[in-house]
Amino acid sequence: MNANIISIGDELLIGQTTNTNASFIGNELSEININISKIVTVGDEASSILDSFESAREQSDLVIVTGGLGPTHDDITRTCVVKFFNTELIQNEEILEDIKSLFGKRNREVTDVNRAQALVPKIAEPIRNQHGTAPGMWIEKDGKIFIVMPGVPYEMKAMMNDVIVPRLIEKIDDSGIWIKRRSLQTTGIPESTLSEKLGDIEELLEGGKLAFLPSITGVKLRITVEAFNEETAINKLSEIEQKIRSKVGRYIYGKDDESLEEVVARLLEERQLKISTAESCTGGLIANSLTNISGSSNYFERGVVCYSNASKVEILSVDEDTIQKHGAVSMEVAMQMAEGVKSTSGSDIGISVTGIMGPKGAETDKPVGLVFIGYCDDKVCTVKKHIFGNERLLNKQRTMRAALDMIRKQLLGIPLDD
Amino acid sequence: MNANIISIGDELLIGQTTNTNASFIGNELSEININISKIVTVGDEASSILDSFESAREQSDLVIVTGGLGPTHDDITRTCVVKFFNTELIQNEEILEDIKSLFGKRNREVTDVNRAQALVPKIAEPIRNQHGTAPGMWIEKDGKIFIVMPGVPYEMKAMMNDVIVPRLIEKIDDSGIWIKRRSLQTTGIPESTLSEKLGDIEELLEGGKLAFLPSITGVKLRITVEAFNEETAINKLSEIEQKIRSKVGRYIYGKDDESLEEVVARLLEERQLKISTAESCTGGLIANSLTNISGSSNYFERGVVCYSNASKVEILSVDEDTIQKHGAVSMEVAMQMAEGVKSTSGSDIGISVTGIMGPKGAETDKPVGLVFIGYCDDKVCTVKKHIFGNERLLNKQRTMRAALDMIRKQLLGIPLDD
Repeated sequence: MNANIISIGDELLIGQTTNTNASFIGNELSEININISKIVTVGDEASSILDSFESAREQSDLVIVTGGLGPTHDDITRTCVVKFFNTELIQNEEILEDIKSLFGKRNREVTDVNRAQALVPKIAEPIRNQHGTAPGMWIEKDGKIFIVMPGVPYEMKAMMNDVIVPRLIEKIDDSGIWIKRRSLQTTGIPESTLSEKLGDIEELLEGGKLAFLPSITGVKLRITVEAFNEETAINKLSEIEQKIRSKVGRYIYGKDDESLEEVVARLLEERQLKISTAESCTGGLIANSLTNISGSSNYFERGVVCYSNASKVEILSVDEDTIQKHGAVSMEVAMQMAEGVKSTSGSDIGISVTGIMGPKGAETDKPVGLVFIGYCDDKVCTVKKHIFGNERLLNKQRTMRAALDMIRKQLLGIPLDD
Repeated sequence: MNANIISIGDELLIGQTTNTNASFIGNELSEININISKIVTVGDEASSILDSFESAREQSDLVIVTGGLGPTHDDITRTCVVKFFNTELIQNEEILEDIKSLFGKRNREVTDVNRAQALVPKIAEPIRNQHGTAPGMWIEKDGKIFIVMPGVPYEMKAMMNDVIVPRLIEKIDDSGIWIKRRSLQTTGIPESTLSEKLGDIEELLEGGKLAFLPSITGVKLRITVEAFNEETAINKLSEIEQKIRSKVGRYIYGKDDESLEEVVARLLEERQLKISTAESCTGGLIANSLTNISGSSNYFERGVVCYSNASKVEILSVDEDTIQKHGAVSMEVAMQMAEGVKSTSGSDIGISVTGIMGPKGAETDKPVGLVFIGYCDDKVCTVKKHIFGNERLLNKQRTMRAALDMIRKQLLGIPLDD
């Protein structure tokens, strides 16, 4: 089954609202193996809406429309449905009762405007709205399904979960093809290097598909396979995953939506280790990430944001002469910070960062983007040098992720250098 | 000028990624009075991409495309551009130099895959990418403008801000109606209360428009006015702004895209004050926000993330008995933390937070969401109690913003309590 999604609303066009409805629906449909070929967003304007209906009906078997069902003058989707299907509005008693009961619960009077919400196009089967007054519509004509829902996210989501997805599953012929997906999260390796290391993609995939999805947090590898039954599809996924891991496994920190901080938190908890942080240039971002996970007090002892040299000396016992001799941004100071925060806090692990985040602050031999990350535990003390870019906030993010990945690699015994 | 936006990528169709690029572009275009009539999302599939190009060119004067420009096999947008405009790829030396320099800075070798990114369709003027290897493209043909950008949000945003919006402004005919917008940023007040305090909106606006844009950071009030010349429009904006400020001025911390941390940073710099932070529940988020601003070492001395009780006592000299008697989440401990970080760091201001971010950790008399924020300078020491919600990450954000707003109000002499 092939679907188009249509989102209606001026606020979506001018960027006042981000279209999260389309991504929710896209995700729900792809989970049940419906292929989405297009998402179209148009404004609250009749000819655009009718055009989008027409072209979606031509190009797909299933059309899902959201938005423009509210009670005010700028909501014209229902009128467009009436015109498009050459039908008329009739009052639906069940929907009217729903509206009355909703207003009763909220102690409000039902006005004519509200009552008009119970008018449903004759061709449509109304879908009851658990959380609002505008009903959805389910229309089947000439072998195609046309579904209309309100644009309010939680009203739409309830309709999708309670009514639409279950009914679509019934409609899908289950003798067909199973599409299964899995994502592998990588960090610390650019898309192009990843692609090179993977080598011949065709050979790797044997008919599967692989997408590279780069973002500020790293490159996500998404594997998609098709098979005639679920088990074969899952086996095929696992096979491809194994092949990918054998080539770039050290860069893969998690699956699907797992975050790097979740992985590090889990490793620390499993091993019952306490960590403390000493941050200069990241200004608390590493401590913040590590404490974003619920239960972080189990593994996080303290953090120091030692921006001034005085704070490095006073709280972390960094040697003043070392700062004088090598500068605050140096391998030596990073090492002493990591050692210092480990010993003063009595933690099992100390992690430190010092660097130049920019855009200002470069010195003759120290460019913007230069960062030293120090790691100390009971067995090893080490510092890794990085050179990132020119953008302050990106540099903070990259440094934080490199520090978390350094912890992950140390805990798993993965060597740091390529 | 009438625009279509085309977003390319399978990950958008299946809802793995929400299309924030389209809303960003829609917002930028509408700010400069370009009307967006349609947003279309298609997958990484040549015939869909070419169809979307064709219909966008028919329906609009300006087409903006993002996505599918990466170096890997699933990125086919550039190939589609070549086919659509019946042109060919030629190597651009300037872009190649950009790529070499980017890799040089990162100490990485330029591979053939990277080098191929410098191939640009002959018909296009390349747009340099400050943050990545894929250049954008600016194509003008038959009186229409066709712009292609990478889908990585920060690469795309930099291109929009630095090159595309300024060039589009030049292209727009300025003889028509002037639409001017201004936003006032508020924090610490819910949308409904703000609306009540503003009273009769029609009277306030005299033909202008006002949008309430709530987000996690507060409610943005966006004023829009129209006039036949720029001066009248600007005067009208200022008049409405003054009326709004007379009613809710104390909640307004900035204009347009100014952030609360920028405002606080500016106030501290102007007054040559140094600040230090002592954070428990926010885990470094306040220090991180204050150090997101370039030049933050001028006003930020140090931060302590005192998660454990031991760290509160050892680094901040909080009294152990006070923790025993009142608990770590208490007005008394917040006060001592703020005093402690001020005096041990020798800063002019100490700010502290202690609270329960959830979802776990509630005690009999201390619910999830309970937070105490302490503020100390040479004249005053004070603590404010808040009760936020149940969501950990939202609570961290809200606490951080409440702390920054407390600093702002103290520095400006605005009373804390309503």
